[in-house]
Amino acid sequence: MATAGKVIKCKAAVAWEPNKPLVIEEIEVAPPQANEVRIKIVSTALCRSDLYHLLESESNDGFPVVLGHEAAGIVESVGPGVTEFQSGDKVIPLFLSQCRECRFCKSPKTNQCDNTWAIVRSDGMEEPDSRLTCKGKKLMQFSGTSTFSEYTVVNQIAVAKIDPVAPLDKVCLLGCGVCTGYGAAVNTAKVEPGSTCAVFGLGAVGLAAVMGCKAAGAKRIIAVDVNPEKFEKAKVFGATEFVNPKDHSKPISQVLSEMTDGGVDYSLECVGNVELMRSALESCVKGWGVSVIVGWTNLHDFASRPVQLIAGRTWTGCLFGAYLDKKVKLDEFITHKMTLAQVNDAVELMKHSKCIRTVLSRFRSLWLELWIGKPVDQRELSAVECGCAQSAAGFHYMKRLSRCLESCCRQRIQCDTDAATGQRRNCDQQQHRSTWRDGFGFATHGEEKLSTPSHRCPISPYPTDS
Amino acid sequence: MATAGKVIKCKAAVAWEPNKPLVIEEIEVAPPQANEVRIKIVSTALCRSDLYHLLESESNDGFPVVLGHEAAGIVESVGPGVTEFQSGDKVIPLFLSQCRECRFCKSPKTNQCDNTWAIVRSDGMEEPDSRLTCKGKKLMQFSGTSTFSEYTVVNQIAVAKIDPVAPLDKVCLLGCGVCTGYGAAVNTAKVEPGSTCAVFGLGAVGLAAVMGCKAAGAKRIIAVDVNPEKFEKAKVFGATEFVNPKDHSKPISQVLSEMTDGGVDYSLECVGNVELMRSALESCVKGWGVSVIVGWTNLHDFASRPVQLIAGRTWTGCLFGAYLDKKVKLDEFITHKMTLAQVNDAVELMKHSKCIRTVLSRFRSLWLELWIGKPVDQRELSAVECGCAQSAAGFHYMKRLSRCLESCCRQRIQCDTDAATGQRRNCDQQQHRSTWRDGFGFATHGEEKLSTPSHRCPISPYPTDS
Repeated sequence: MATAGKVIKCKAAVAWEPNKPLVIEEIEVAPPQANEVRIKIVSTALCRSDLYHLLESESNDGFPVVLGHEAAGIVESVGPGVTEFQSGDKVIPLFLSQCRECRFCKSPKTNQCDNTWAIVRSDGMEEPDSRLTCKGKKLMQFSGTSTFSEYTVVNQIAVAKIDPVAPLDKVCLLGCGVCTGYGAAVNTAKVEPGSTCAVFGLGAVGLAAVMGCKAAGAKRIIAVDVNPEKFEKAKVFGATEFVNPKDHSKPISQVLSEMTDGGVDYSLECVGNVELMRSALESCVKGWGVSVIVGWTNLHDFASRPVQLIAGRTWTGCLFGAYLDKKVKLDEFITHKMTLAQVNDAVELMKHSKCIRTVLSRFRSLWLELWIGKPVDQRELSAVECGCAQSAAGFHYMKRLSRCLESCCRQRIQCDTDAATGQRRNCDQQQHRSTWRDGFGFATHGEEKLSTPSHRCPISPYPTDS
Repeated sequence: MATAGKVIKCKAAVAWEPNKPLVIEEIEVAPPQANEVRIKIVSTALCRSDLYHLLESESNDGFPVVLGHEAAGIVESVGPGVTEFQSGDKVIPLFLSQCRECRFCKSPKTNQCDNTWAIVRSDGMEEPDSRLTCKGKKLMQFSGTSTFSEYTVVNQIAVAKIDPVAPLDKVCLLGCGVCTGYGAAVNTAKVEPGSTCAVFGLGAVGLAAVMGCKAAGAKRIIAVDVNPEKFEKAKVFGATEFVNPKDHSKPISQVLSEMTDGGVDYSLECVGNVELMRSALESCVKGWGVSVIVGWTNLHDFASRPVQLIAGRTWTGCLFGAYLDKKVKLDEFITHKMTLAQVNDAVELMKHSKCIRTVLSRFRSLWLELWIGKPVDQRELSAVECGCAQSAAGFHYMKRLSRCLESCCRQRIQCDTDAATGQRRNCDQQQHRSTWRDGFGFATHGEEKLSTPSHRCPISPYPTDS
């Protein structure tokens, strides 16, 4: 690679301070050092824990930082001592590494690693470990990854190689949310066939938890959310019932207890709200009920009365759901697709619970750059390429732009057609089903098994710049 | 029985209101109704949860009440429908019943019963269920048992028959404390061989937890208590190390973490203090650490930061430790022996952590009654029979009385001698070892297998009034 060994200048979304919009800056990404891998980030989704760091951090200690940890990309170059990865490999950066050598990695009881830059240890990777600099200032690497950047550097123990045909703008979700929710049900709660489960919060993690409960054979899966619009989505993943706490004057734990003759066998808190954690525990049946804390927050204590545990309930939690070995849905999580430049719009969407997952990918802008033959500013695009008269900043702008891009795609670029089956490849609408293999390797991905460039649609899940 | 079908008038320690000394009153114990068993209580120990109800109950709702739930006795009569028990059976009343029919009893996951008068449901058994009356007023039955009475009535699902040779003033401990601590380690925490454990609080429950950790094969058992005098006792049960939080300026969780390279595998809180519950959780290793709440309290919330669970720790609890199938020590728990009339002295001892277990038995007074040929008042006794010049009320009186009684026993009544072995039966000093069988049945109890009255020492563990 022409860039190997050199500092790369690229765009990144920098969070200079808490509670302020991210700023798209030109940053310098140093070459990977020993055992490190430099990755070109192709797609990255916004996860609630990015938001948590941005909006709820108590101090400036974790700033300036490049957020983002749910991503997929392509190895640009590797540092000395790296033998498992090489330039061109498609990878997912892991905020929870796997050194395979520590007592945690060797134990079947946990997915924690003693050598991780774990969230549980600190919020970021500081000097001298960070490889990111902006305006002469070191930027912290959030969760040791920092994927809201066109390039980042991570330790090789924090990289998972994936199948070359994996759609990066979808499998990026496996970097955190989907594994976390699914694994929480399957690996942490160990949901049993025929059991009754309650999932609190129907974001990506909650929906993945619903999916995990279903995969584990749960008979009843009660989805709990204050937004009734999410129920249809939850049904897709396997929810059998829906409870909106706003519809009840009683505590939700009492509602669930009455629905289930004393409480559910398993409950999963997928929001990151300490009051909800309490409700989730107290919704469990005495004797054997298990409640898992999946949502991330750490500003406040969670609490309950001792009798809740003394009566035989178990309260546990997990960070990232460990590896998967089951069929999972992926497309269904993605409600919005944007570019990195639109990261603040993605933040607004999540802040107001208007999305499940927003995936920020390079390919749209790259395709558009290709199309109009020159690098473009996103704001320009909305007016120039999509015919939108208004190009005001912020959320509404982004929504329009997003619609325009979809529209452009459908109108101007016909997705190609499979010669053998005649099936039309309308990539934005087609349901992809994926089979997941050990260690983040995609075996197949349903109907859409594209392997040659000629089958690639420029607005398909496959980045054109691989 | 001459008393069958009739109301029995007998002595009981009545707690008329919170935070006041118990009053020895004459009460009426109604005959057992359908499926009920009336029991003559021979020995009852004072457990911290009796104290909790007396001292920490927030309201008068749970009063007047007869406390006590850790006891052993003899069936006096049975109500209609009772076929498993008959007059003369030696039994342990259970505050946690086993109906054997509900979904909880049928599940191997829990020892809870859906038909219990459990502590988790309410603090007492009220009219019409209580069979105890005093001065025309119904008394609540604490934990459905109320063993601080010469007689009580419990449902047959809350009675366990024991071997006729079981020493009632020792096996009474199996009614709560010993099973709770031991079972918490073996059944709830599921301590694994080679693991590292920490036990917080070295009362009877804590010592039983130490014993359980040892039986489960723990390699290191760290006993934590602010009273260094308890370490020698803890060693007897298997503790390998002792930590006194008062010796450290750091939080105890940090001390334990440093001692154990990141935290213990299992911790057991055996006090009933919400701050200690937090310390116990936070002393566990991330990834797989399990903390069990064993001590009883329910006045305040227990709490921690979400990251403690998200990092893979598990917080659980148990009520009563389920059945045992292992060898257990029993004598070693008993630090004081008194009569029911001395119950307030026992309360004072426990309030000030001056005892492990005080067993209140009938036999001493019965023996003394036999000896002096007439019913006696305990205060009289101390002066009349033991030669104590001072017989002031309260704790000091009791201590003196206790010493006097021991002294009397040793001086005036020689414990008998086994004809075959010539072994002297000094019952107050001899170590009894017991083997525990399913369902509260004693198989053997070591050296001391007395079965005929001729071998009985009047101050032995065997009540003379059976």
